[in-house]
Amino acid sequence: MDMAYVLDTFFALFAMTLIIFMVPGFAMLEAGLVRTKNVTAVLMTNTMIYSVASLAFLLVGYSLAFGSWENDSMSKWAAFLFQMAFVGKTVNIMSGGVSERAKIIPLTLFTIIMGALIYPLVVNVTWGANFLEGSWLDISAMHDLAGCTVIHSTGAWALLAAILIIGPRRGRYKNGKIRVIPASNIPLVTLGAFLLWIGWFGFNGGSVGSISTKEAADTVALTIMNTNTAGLAGAIVVGILLYLRYGKLDITMILNGALGGLVAVTAGADVFSIYAPIAIGAIGGLLVVIAVPFFDKLQLDDPVGALSVHLINGIWGTLAVAIFGDASFWAQIKGILVVGVFAFGVSYAVLYAINKVVPFRASDDDQLEGLDYVECGMEAYPEFKQNI
Amino acid sequence: MDMAYVLDTFFALFAMTLIIFMVPGFAMLEAGLVRTKNVTAVLMTNTMIYSVASLAFLLVGYSLAFGSWENDSMSKWAAFLFQMAFVGKTVNIMSGGVSERAKIIPLTLFTIIMGALIYPLVVNVTWGANFLEGSWLDISAMHDLAGCTVIHSTGAWALLAAILIIGPRRGRYKNGKIRVIPASNIPLVTLGAFLLWIGWFGFNGGSVGSISTKEAADTVALTIMNTNTAGLAGAIVVGILLYLRYGKLDITMILNGALGGLVAVTAGADVFSIYAPIAIGAIGGLLVVIAVPFFDKLQLDDPVGALSVHLINGIWGTLAVAIFGDASFWAQIKGILVVGVFAFGVSYAVLYAINKVVPFRASDDDQLEGLDYVECGMEAYPEFKQNI
Amino acid sequence: MDMAYVLDTFFALFAMTLIIFMVPGFAMLEAGLVRTKNVTAVLMTNTMIYSVASLAFLLVGYSLAFGSWENDSMSKWAAFLFQMAFVGKTVNIMSGGVSERAKIIPLTLFTIIMGALIYPLVVNVTWGANFLEGSWLDISAMHDLAGCTVIHSTGAWALLAAILIIGPRRGRYKNGKIRVIPASNIPLVTLGAFLLWIGWFGFNGGSVGSISTKEAADTVALTIMNTNTAGLAGAIVVGILLYLRYGKLDITMILNGALGGLVAVTAGADVFSIYAPIAIGAIGGLLVVIAVPFFDKLQLDDPVGALSVHLINGIWGTLAVAIFGDASFWAQIKGILVVGVFAFGVSYAVLYAINKVVPFRASDDDQLEGLDYVECGMEAYPEFKQNI
Repeated sequence: MDMAYVLDTFFALFAMTLIIFMVPGFAMLEAGLVRTKNVTAVLMTNTMIYSVASLAFLLVGYSLAFGSWENDSMSKWAAFLFQMAFVGKTVNIMSGGVSERAKIIPLTLFTIIMGALIYPLVVNVTWGANFLEGSWLDISAMHDLAGCTVIHSTGAWALLAAILIIGPRRGRYKNGKIRVIPASNIPLVTLGAFLLWIGWFGFNGGSVGSISTKEAADTVALTIMNTNTAGLAGAIVVGILLYLRYGKLDITMILNGALGGLVAVTAGADVFSIYAPIAIGAIGGLLVVIAVPFFDKLQLDDPVGALSVHLINGIWGTLAVAIFGDASFWAQIKGILVVGVFAFGVSYAVLYAINKVVPFRASDDDQLEGLDYVECGMEAYPEFKQNI
Repeated sequence: MDMAYVLDTFFALFAMTLIIFMVPGFAMLEAGLVRTKNVTAVLMTNTMIYSVASLAFLLVGYSLAFGSWENDSMSKWAAFLFQMAFVGKTVNIMSGGVSERAKIIPLTLFTIIMGALIYPLVVNVTWGANFLEGSWLDISAMHDLAGCTVIHSTGAWALLAAILIIGPRRGRYKNGKIRVIPASNIPLVTLGAFLLWIGWFGFNGGSVGSISTKEAADTVALTIMNTNTAGLAGAIVVGILLYLRYGKLDITMILNGALGGLVAVTAGADVFSIYAPIAIGAIGGLLVVIAVPFFDKLQLDDPVGALSVHLINGIWGTLAVAIFGDASFWAQIKGILVVGVFAFGVSYAVLYAINKVVPFRASDDDQLEGLDYVECGMEAYPEFKQNI
Repeated sequence: MDMAYVLDTFFALFAMTLIIFMVPGFAMLEAGLVRTKNVTAVLMTNTMIYSVASLAFLLVGYSLAFGSWENDSMSKWAAFLFQMAFVGKTVNIMSGGVSERAKIIPLTLFTIIMGALIYPLVVNVTWGANFLEGSWLDISAMHDLAGCTVIHSTGAWALLAAILIIGPRRGRYKNGKIRVIPASNIPLVTLGAFLLWIGWFGFNGGSVGSISTKEAADTVALTIMNTNTAGLAGAIVVGILLYLRYGKLDITMILNGALGGLVAVTAGADVFSIYAPIAIGAIGGLLVVIAVPFFDKLQLDDPVGALSVHLINGIWGTLAVAIFGDASFWAQIKGILVVGVFAFGVSYAVLYAINKVVPFRASDDDQLEGLDYVECGMEAYPEFKQNI
């Protein structure tokens, strides 16, 4: 029916637009979390990722993921745009966690491979053409609405590989002690987090794929409601925990708690009852609070907390569909494992190979000076006097 | 009809999304208006408000306001989300006006009561189930499309109560003189104001409740047009007045003029002709210019001008529907009075009780140091050298 | 059909909303590009432009452009709002390029004329009532979907006239040398650029004018896809060029490359195949890299690169429809010439006349002190210590 085609096209364009707000969302969040001397480099990295990953997906990745551009239920261009809006996110997750020491050119090379090959292959076997169909590795039974595993874990496995290869920031761990490096601009962190939050409505709501029937409209609205609820719960639980423990409300951790809740609900927001996301998001926030110091103890240096938000909660969220929805535990675990082994393994190999040719790690001197000047030839705030 | 159900659900989700942009909108506006040392606390307060008020509304408030979750004209989840997007705004209005001296934990307790009880009761007797139906207090005849009285005045009455209980910022009024405290970040103020402006399209347009017929579509478009026009007029009038009086264009006042115009048109944007909002918004802006020094003379310290923008214009806008629309003066006045007495009275009592247990007011020492460090344990811009 | 009317109204409101995000978009971009001492004045100028241009268009311009407010295919209020969202952009393009030395009051006077007369007359003969119909000057055959010539060149021709009249910033060119003046806030530049990018989806997508049939939905989606692709290509090409030439990634130039690509695709995004925008946007980015130093050599001082982004690419984009689409070269060239001669000539005359009465140029002393204090009586970041 034409009206359904029109409505689903319009809705996909609406959802896509919301997701694109995540581009400035990630950029502002990360620009606020790093030190002033690395802000321009972080913004440049985010700009590069959106441009390069999206074009790689257009030229190669989309066909690889879905086998064909044809689409009967909506405009094929809208279907492409919606999927394209996702691809950069996997690299955003990865680049944020290695900021303040990873260089932009090797990150660009990795972005091409991620946008053209790694992410499209993950999509192929989950939401797409599924070249594993019928094999013992087939994971298409995993319920993963908008990518707890497909997006968040994939990006975060790549991040884990990158951290292992690139190492921590200069001076972060010294004689077994962790040097605290405060976020440089809290308004940007907050703005970025809320742009991400809003983008999530498009991410999860749009992943329902249709709004043109009564049932579909109900599912879309339920999905957005559940998405939001998990974010609320994540923020609140982290706030309570921090207040009880320290008597202070650490806003960067609380916003990461909200993002953790939002990740955690992403796999099953379409099937949960309206109260389940309170528990799912609360556990998501709790996991962030536990995981951030845990990764630091392992000296896996992650300035934005991406492993805690995206990897731990990507896994938790995929499992949650088996607990609060009716997915099979085994299907969810199998999906987590297959994607995890593939994403970590291939990312590690690709990052290792790139690193041999164009090393990722900025020298200690360059890190001391800041990547803004070294990589971009400019400061983010040249007129403001800074504390050393 | 299914198509109407689908369209009205989609439209409610669109409108809701625009309103959620008001969360970073209020956060950026307020973060820009306060001093650097209180920025993180303001951002934390805004994050808390969205999380806590929304969850309280989900768990208690929505049922209290509307009696039932059932909805035939659109997805009940979309109907909930649209209403949920409103609730935090009442507390935002209140918290902004007591920023730089009110502590977050008692504000959180008040947010719970506002989101679960006070605001839902106001909605109940105006847009909702109406437990006053048939009584002499029945105010359901008031025409208040998107909440001049229901949202803006309710929040601002709570603010007035809070200012009376908490008092002015340390050092604001000294020997009868007013110490000017400049806004710390004008780009954030501007960004916040325009995010609010855009959010208003969803707030007022979405309050029409349907877009699925020709008449409804016309009303929605007219509503958004009128909303915008009043904002334009508010900004222009304040600009002209300030330029004629001082020869300078005070952007924070001009943006508050725009917001005053936007508040003023909120009760009747669906019924005004397209020229009326020019007058309504212009008067709204004028009222802001008059009211800001007036409240300062009364030593009612309101760092963001919320009493002027939301209380004075909430009242003016409700009355404007009787002047430029066809509402009855008496119905409008009765609505203003009943909501005002209730919102002020109950808020005062609740704030007073909370204040006895967990005092709102930060000590002079804490205010001197700044709430960022005291409440959140961090600075907003730790690397930038500051003038004392 | 009612459903088509409803859908096209809803879609126009959606597109309009995205375009309004360009108001903070331009404001943040320009506030980030100028020096700290001129940030408030730039923000005030942007606020003024939106308010004054939109109201002038409502009161005078819209009727002049289209002859009538009637509309059968969608709500006439939605049709107005969509067109109104465009008008301020022409002045934004102009004001950005003369920032740091042009005063707000004469800019306001020009904004009135632009919004009420100049821009509406350009629209009249291109998209509107066409009073030139049948004359030898008739340019309605030009294919200009969303205004490469109608918006971007018109604004930029006015900018060229303004630069000629107002002259460069104090100290910008000294003894034939160009003094580099760095951007003061890179996160704001980045945020602004991406808000503009997202706004472009509404700008170009909405200009299709309908989404309510299968064909229209396909065209809208194709238009948004092509728009985005050209932005990606513009950013990537500038990034490659800068890296090869300087070994540094100048993010402000790269973002201007993206904007150049977005301008370049604006005339024909509805008719290009999906690969053409890669070439169109890449050439758009290349033109920015070439044109920025070229205009500086001519001592046409343009702090935000608006001539390069909007004039050069406005022309290139209009021609591109004859190369990659099926527009006639002659129709495109004629349109460029007629609009160019008119927009430049009339803008020059109007600016010249205003300049006689209320001079545009801030004195050297005022420029040294910064327009923020002189024009607005406040600093943008009063608490941050600044390097002189």
